[in-house]
Amino acid sequence: MPNPTAAMIVIGDEILSGRTRDSNMHHLAGQLTSVGIDLKEVRVIGDEHGTIIAAVQAMSKIYDNVFTSGGIGPTHDDITADCIATAFDKHIDVRDDAREILATHYAKSGTELNEARLRMARIPDDATLIDNPVSAAPGFKLENVHVMAGVPAVFEAMVATVLPTLTGGAPLISATMRIDRGEGDIAGPLGQVAKENPNLSIGSYPFQKDGKYGAHIVVRGNNQEEIDAAMRTLQAAFP
Amino acid sequence: MPNPTAAMIVIGDEILSGRTRDSNMHHLAGQLTSVGIDLKEVRVIGDEHGTIIAAVQAMSKIYDNVFTSGGIGPTHDDITADCIATAFDKHIDVRDDAREILATHYAKSGTELNEARLRMARIPDDATLIDNPVSAAPGFKLENVHVMAGVPAVFEAMVATVLPTLTGGAPLISATMRIDRGEGDIAGPLGQVAKENPNLSIGSYPFQKDGKYGAHIVVRGNNQEEIDAAMRTLQAAFP
Repeated sequence: MPNPTAAMIVIGDEILSGRTRDSNMHHLAGQLTSVGIDLKEVRVIGDEHGTIIAAVQAMSKIYDNVFTSGGIGPTHDDITADCIATAFDKHIDVRDDAREILATHYAKSGTELNEARLRMARIPDDATLIDNPVSAAPGFKLENVHVMAGVPAVFEAMVATVLPTLTGGAPLISATMRIDRGEGDIAGPLGQVAKENPNLSIGSYPFQKDGKYGAHIVVRGNNQEEIDAAMRTLQAAFP
Repeated sequence: MPNPTAAMIVIGDEILSGRTRDSNMHHLAGQLTSVGIDLKEVRVIGDEHGTIIAAVQAMSKIYDNVFTSGGIGPTHDDITADCIATAFDKHIDVRDDAREILATHYAKSGTELNEARLRMARIPDDATLIDNPVSAAPGFKLENVHVMAGVPAVFEAMVATVLPTLTGGAPLISATMRIDRGEGDIAGPLGQVAKENPNLSIGSYPFQKDGKYGAHIVVRGNNQEEIDAAMRTLQAAFP
């Protein structure tokens, strides 16, 4: 049985302008791989209603799970929650359960739960809240879309909350071999091994160090024995 | 006149599995911003023919410029060049001009220009080569798509080659202000300033440091005077 699939939508003008370097994609990719969910596509898009709605509608149809990061804070440029509601034709407003979480959180520090902060309690009908142990304001899940914060510490905490709730597949196993020769020398035998092992994904990742060429060969699959056999063949080909 | 637009396609299973952390997106984003080209979308996809072809066809229609990174090396998993040819219905084979570049390069080091390395001279008809000062194997431009290497040093060198050939727009100017208060306190006045300045993009990027909340407010636009005026309003609102 093939693994469940996933896609990610990174939302934020600051990533596309080069101001901010996204780190959530790399984090989510590693986490999904560890539980056997195949991340198939990531889209990075700006803070625009039409763009966000179209991406959510398209990707939630194609993939088993969709994850978004960014755009659920209290400021005017945080429009993700409203876009998700529109994408699934749901009503959205400040919801009592989310308001309660914020009220409790801000009461502790004596901070006013003003109109702006209340925006973070805007949750579409039928959505399930995702716990935010870092700064309280919750994410949410609607249909197969997990809506999470862009701030890395919060995003990572939400991923940790969500991950155990997902149906995983066979975790990807991988073995890596470093060959200190140029990819051009490696490619022939490597392609042959790839052809003989259709169940395995065999990748070649070239590097250049101290003026010398080399490559890391990564063999990935779900079956340890198949991977071991392929690695033995490669070791014999590149002693 | 609106700025020219761009999209990027990052190609590689190793990014989606979390094995490799992409750095090319962040680099290209900053470079395009500096010359007034708006990066509107990035898609990260795997090494699959159908996926690559569909993404190239869709994005080359929507955006003025498309940039790809990854998949143009000598190994079996390097399928980008063939996919680009298919996407634009062009014939592809080893081309004399690219072969010549590789032959000269490998002759210097006494390295054999074998069948695998010759794969890197596979260039679609009508494509223009993109110089690779790092490791010789060229990228290419076909229609409005720039096909470049995934290895960051090579990608960055190719971007430097390509950038002066592009039609830029008004470079984005930005001003940043740090406010040591939670976003929830900032949001109200900030939204008002954003509403009063439809030509400016005003973003709020929250941070948490030493247990305290704050945000960087970034005002972006093409007109220095408008930006200065908005910054003065913000400074007055958050003394």
